[in-house]
Amino acid sequence: MSFHTIVPAGGIGSRLWPLSRAARPKFLLDLGGEGASLLQRTVARLAPFAMSQTVVTGAAHAAAVREQVPTADILVEPSMRGTMPAIALAAELVRRRDPEAVVGSFAADHHIRDERAFGAALGSAIGAAEAGYVATIGIAPDSPSTAYGYIHAGNRLSAVAGIGEASGTGPVFDVREFVEKPDSARAARYLETGEFLWNAGIFVARASVLMEALERYHPEIAGPVRELAARWGDATLRAEAIEAFWKPLPVAVIDRAVAEPLSEDGGVVVVPADMGWSDIGDYESLARLLADAKGPRIAVDSPGSLSLASKPVAVVGIEGAVVVEMDDVVLVTTREAAQKVKEAREEAREAGLGSLL
Amino acid sequence: MSFHTIVPAGGIGSRLWPLSRAARPKFLLDLGGEGASLLQRTVARLAPFAMSQTVVTGAAHAAAVREQVPTADILVEPSMRGTMPAIALAAELVRRRDPEAVVGSFAADHHIRDERAFGAALGSAIGAAEAGYVATIGIAPDSPSTAYGYIHAGNRLSAVAGIGEASGTGPVFDVREFVEKPDSARAARYLETGEFLWNAGIFVARASVLMEALERYHPEIAGPVRELAARWGDATLRAEAIEAFWKPLPVAVIDRAVAEPLSEDGGVVVVPADMGWSDIGDYESLARLLADAKGPRIAVDSPGSLSLASKPVAVVGIEGAVVVEMDDVVLVTTREAAQKVKEAREEAREAGLGSLL
Repeated sequence: MSFHTIVPAGGIGSRLWPLSRAARPKFLLDLGGEGASLLQRTVARLAPFAMSQTVVTGAAHAAAVREQVPTADILVEPSMRGTMPAIALAAELVRRRDPEAVVGSFAADHHIRDERAFGAALGSAIGAAEAGYVATIGIAPDSPSTAYGYIHAGNRLSAVAGIGEASGTGPVFDVREFVEKPDSARAARYLETGEFLWNAGIFVARASVLMEALERYHPEIAGPVRELAARWGDATLRAEAIEAFWKPLPVAVIDRAVAEPLSEDGGVVVVPADMGWSDIGDYESLARLLADAKGPRIAVDSPGSLSLASKPVAVVGIEGAVVVEMDDVVLVTTREAAQKVKEAREEAREAGLGSLL
Repeated sequence: MSFHTIVPAGGIGSRLWPLSRAARPKFLLDLGGEGASLLQRTVARLAPFAMSQTVVTGAAHAAAVREQVPTADILVEPSMRGTMPAIALAAELVRRRDPEAVVGSFAADHHIRDERAFGAALGSAIGAAEAGYVATIGIAPDSPSTAYGYIHAGNRLSAVAGIGEASGTGPVFDVREFVEKPDSARAARYLETGEFLWNAGIFVARASVLMEALERYHPEIAGPVRELAARWGDATLRAEAIEAFWKPLPVAVIDRAVAEPLSEDGGVVVVPADMGWSDIGDYESLARLLADAKGPRIAVDSPGSLSLASKPVAVVGIEGAVVVEMDDVVLVTTREAAQKVKEAREEAREAGLGSLL
């Protein structure tokens, strides 16, 4: 088994401002309070499976990433073009070294509590990838969330050789379709059917299969990426090729560019996993992870509150309060209003508080 | 006119914790943001009228009071016995120097915006005091507050010589009764009638009249206070007299001990005043005073919020949020829950955070 990981590390996580900053994005933070950043935990979680690991990041964060995960290869994205070009470039570079390689892409800033369950699901996904599928790991939902896209699972593929229960890991299903973030009525129906899983953005496939699919659906991306990868090893050629091939690329995300059309063609499978997954997308999500451990020191009529501060915090009469006190700014909100924190970050920009971004 | 002020400076203001602390009580704070503490403003407001000013405070705060108001006499209360013994002792010390003196007692920690209106009301009150009444200044209510006691005003006393409109100051009414903090239905009725005023704890009277009234209703206080006052000038006698006369005194407040019974006997009058008064009793009250000036730097869906902090504060989705960030603690509450801040202070004590009290 030749398995290689690709970890795009890009998003700031602006709904977690001011914990997350442009200069210190979410993936570099130890949000779980475990003595390791989300990126470090991601790389450590994958280490037992991976022959190599590539973190794809922007020039601004390359040094911080190198410091946090010295064992990983750093692929500095020439400029932001979304996850599809980034993953394709990393996959093609792996494929050129090892044509049989299986690659898996994983978000740098998600949290997984049950690493054993993750490992089992990954084993199934790698098995399916070796059999020629693009495999994703879908999260068994525990609530009718409207914050995630969903994966509609179809028939069980236990018959596929070498994958599913046969290998002692877990069942694999074909993917009927990927669906966008639903409204709450639809999310409730999804939860009821038991056929829908949250899309955690995990994709596992042979590098060759991924590139062939990209060639089929988006030759305008696949072609230039191959050209650039072929010149990547030589600094001079690389610089020219970035100008010629990367700069003109459209922005594209892997879900839309490959996973969705390929699922319609029967090429995508999903491994359901119940592994204590969280994208820690906002303070509601962070509070679910931490509130018991990080409640305010003093709370009067304020159940479910979260406090991250350098000194004691007292909350009075606010259910699910969120208090984040940092060197240079204090944020106060509620778990219910957590989605709007992004707007506060925008207001800070407009108020001339650029140093807080 | 021989007018002397008495300013009891005692209460911590625990509903304004953690701004107010045991070691730095509310009256020492510049809550109005005017470059002067509430005590300093009180003394400055009274200075044009007063021949002498006495601040009555505990030993713990004597040094801070002396530093803040060096022109005032400091009367160190031997131990806490409530406002009645404190005011009586100060009044009797004044009376012994000047038998005709009028004294006025004023809270050290209230805020008055319109000093001209205050001066006019005080002029009327002093006039009524010279005519032999105990005069209070009642606040014209602008809402059906349940946070204050009320004064039920009766007949207008414009006929009394030398007081009321005759002196160009303002009308004076006799007091029917003092009523305790009402429930909200009753407070609404009070507001409707127009006959009820808030009790701001201001009492103006000849020192001799005050002591005679105390003698009548509470000889067990008046007698020992006179004995102590007679020995106050000599340090040795004073120490003995404190043991003999002060220590055994019951706790008593001037409203209950003198103002209420005397009002039933027709001896109390009230001067209504609309002078931008606030007791700044809690964060709701402080927010009413300051919110426009001290709103959070960044506010998303958080109208009417108040922020007192050493760095920018962002509030998201909390109407009337109150954020107080200090060196050693952060308090977050709402104007609606402001009354419960007291409980947070108690919880801090129970949580072993005694240094925050």
